Amino acid sequence: MNEFEIIEHYFKQAYPSSKDDLALGIGDDAAIVNVPEDSELVISMDTLVAGVHFFENTPPEDIAFKSLAVNLSDIAAMGASPRWLSLSLTLPDKDLDWIEKFASSFNKLAAEHSLVLIGGDLTQGPLSITVQIHGINPKGKSLRRGGANAGDAIYVSGKLGAAAYALKSIEDSILYPAATEEEIQRLHRPEARIKTGITLRDVATSCIDISDGLIADLGHILKASEVGAELELSCIPYSDSLKNIDNSLAIELALTGGDDYELCFTIPGGLPEAILEEVDSICPIARIGVINNKNALLVLNNENEEVYDLTSKSYSHFD
Amino acid sequence: MNEFEIIEHYFKQAYPSSKDDLALGIGDDAAIVNVPEDSELVISMDTLVAGVHFFENTPPEDIAFKSLAVNLSDIAAMGASPRWLSLSLTLPDKDLDWIEKFASSFNKLAAEHSLVLIGGDLTQGPLSITVQIHGINPKGKSLRRGGANAGDAIYVSGKLGAAAYALKSIEDSILYPAATEEEIQRLHRPEARIKTGITLRDVATSCIDISDGLIADLGHILKASEVGAELELSCIPYSDSLKNIDNSLAIELALTGGDDYELCFTIPGGLPEAILEEVDSICPIARIGVINNKNALLVLNNENEEVYDLTSKSYSHFD
Repeated sequence: MNEFEIIEHYFKQAYPSSKDDLALGIGDDAAIVNVPEDSELVISMDTLVAGVHFFENTPPEDIAFKSLAVNLSDIAAMGASPRWLSLSLTLPDKDLDWIEKFASSFNKLAAEHSLVLIGGDLTQGPLSITVQIHGINPKGKSLRRGGANAGDAIYVSGKLGAAAYALKSIEDSILYPAATEEEIQRLHRPEARIKTGITLRDVATSCIDISDGLIADLGHILKASEVGAELELSCIPYSDSLKNIDNSLAIELALTGGDDYELCFTIPGGLPEAILEEVDSICPIARIGVINNKNALLVLNNENEEVYDLTSKSYSHFD
Repeated sequence: MNEFEIIEHYFKQAYPSSKDDLALGIGDDAAIVNVPEDSELVISMDTLVAGVHFFENTPPEDIAFKSLAVNLSDIAAMGASPRWLSLSLTLPDKDLDWIEKFASSFNKLAAEHSLVLIGGDLTQGPLSITVQIHGINPKGKSLRRGGANAGDAIYVSGKLGAAAYALKSIEDSILYPAATEEEIQRLHRPEARIKTGITLRDVATSCIDISDGLIADLGHILKASEVGAELELSCIPYSDSLKNIDNSLAIELALTGGDDYELCFTIPGGLPEAILEEVDSICPIARIGVINNKNALLVLNNENEEVYDLTSKSYSHFD
């Protein structure tokens, strides 16, 4: 099989080559889509590299799932509905068994989110996957990082520190008890909070997905919104295994562990309780703090206060 | 400098964060754009990998130029106007000198085409560049591969075999005289035929850019259009150096050498001569053959006929 036959057999056949808003899918120099007139287009792109973002021996099904899920998570953070998908796949060799497993998992998750693969690239080189997703939102409705105001409550979806603990327990199985199935799933096959994001579209003042850790990503909201925040440590929804380990490590993993792909968002006061209950019914959410007008992120617990300087580099990375 | 500072300093500053049709640029989970209501969106994506698509020691300015140009070329082949740009850059290390040179060349070419960088990714790993371009076209006006009809004339822009000869003369400087400046430029900094494509939008019945070689890419037009073709060898616009080398090698390079990024397109009969003169005034074009209803690509010269079977694999690759 050559390049074109691989694309045709493993990918193109799983998707329509045209439909209502897709004028032309895989197989030309470019794809052609028609964005609905009342919609704005939301565009995200992420690359996963072998040995950096996943272990070299990670099953292809998990690599496919995660490369799509981390991009879906960006779309979720904008409150958008996923629509079209491009995939650039760089493979060291033509391992058809690997490709079949990758494609099967990739196409399945895409279908679950009504995503249509419209194009991309297949090249030879060190294993790496770039995914680009187009979502749509009613015009002006996309959630951004920059809308948080003093007094807004800060929420997160799901539980924090799950992926970071799963990674730790895999890397040092003697020191750390095995992670739960849910935690391992969060590391390898994170569920993007698409429905939560869509429900938050008319409610939240800002939103981000937690890929670099709560402190880092909440920091992005604070910087973009030019506000500060206080977090209540006792309100953080710790992932289950964190309750059985050293408390300071648990805090570190929940606050700075990346790869959780939960949503962190801000909600203005005075919102009808029923709306938050609706959001909570999709995926449990927890109120973890409040936005203020200071230039710092303060983490409160019973014994001491820890201040994260928003201008410090502690929550960013070159990676 | 960390990831975010590199993006801010070398890339984000060179582009607006919002303007008319760009609601939100670099710096959130995703970008937000507004596609004009009378337009369709044209989307292409290509990856260039070090050691595969370019030499490891190629200057960063050339790598940047080419990674953008090959994508622009896809947009040109659709007859579209380039608009928005995403870049996923995977770098082995944080070499700020390299990044500065790359960004400077990349941003310059983007500006020349009014392209706005709206997002992407910066990751660590083996050097590779994925570029994704959004172009727009009046609805229904995009050029496709599938519209050629029997009787249409086949044209190409520019000269063929330039990049392939430049590569050959670099790889074996003893056997082959140095390529011309123009040929070396075509290899490292191919000019995408954007204006030619836009002018062809109302004229051509099909179009493709020549990235895999004329035979291969014309083959894609023939397959998508379910037609055949006859090419006149004597009408092929050979790149200058090809006129000084062995004739059969010249033919091979002009017909199967990739990386030229010229356009190959089909034009129905009866078109006013003035229109073709207008296209020719942007970049010289040459009539090289005619579309027919047979299932083969026939290359004619004075001595013999060579038939390329359209179902053969001779013009495809895994790369």
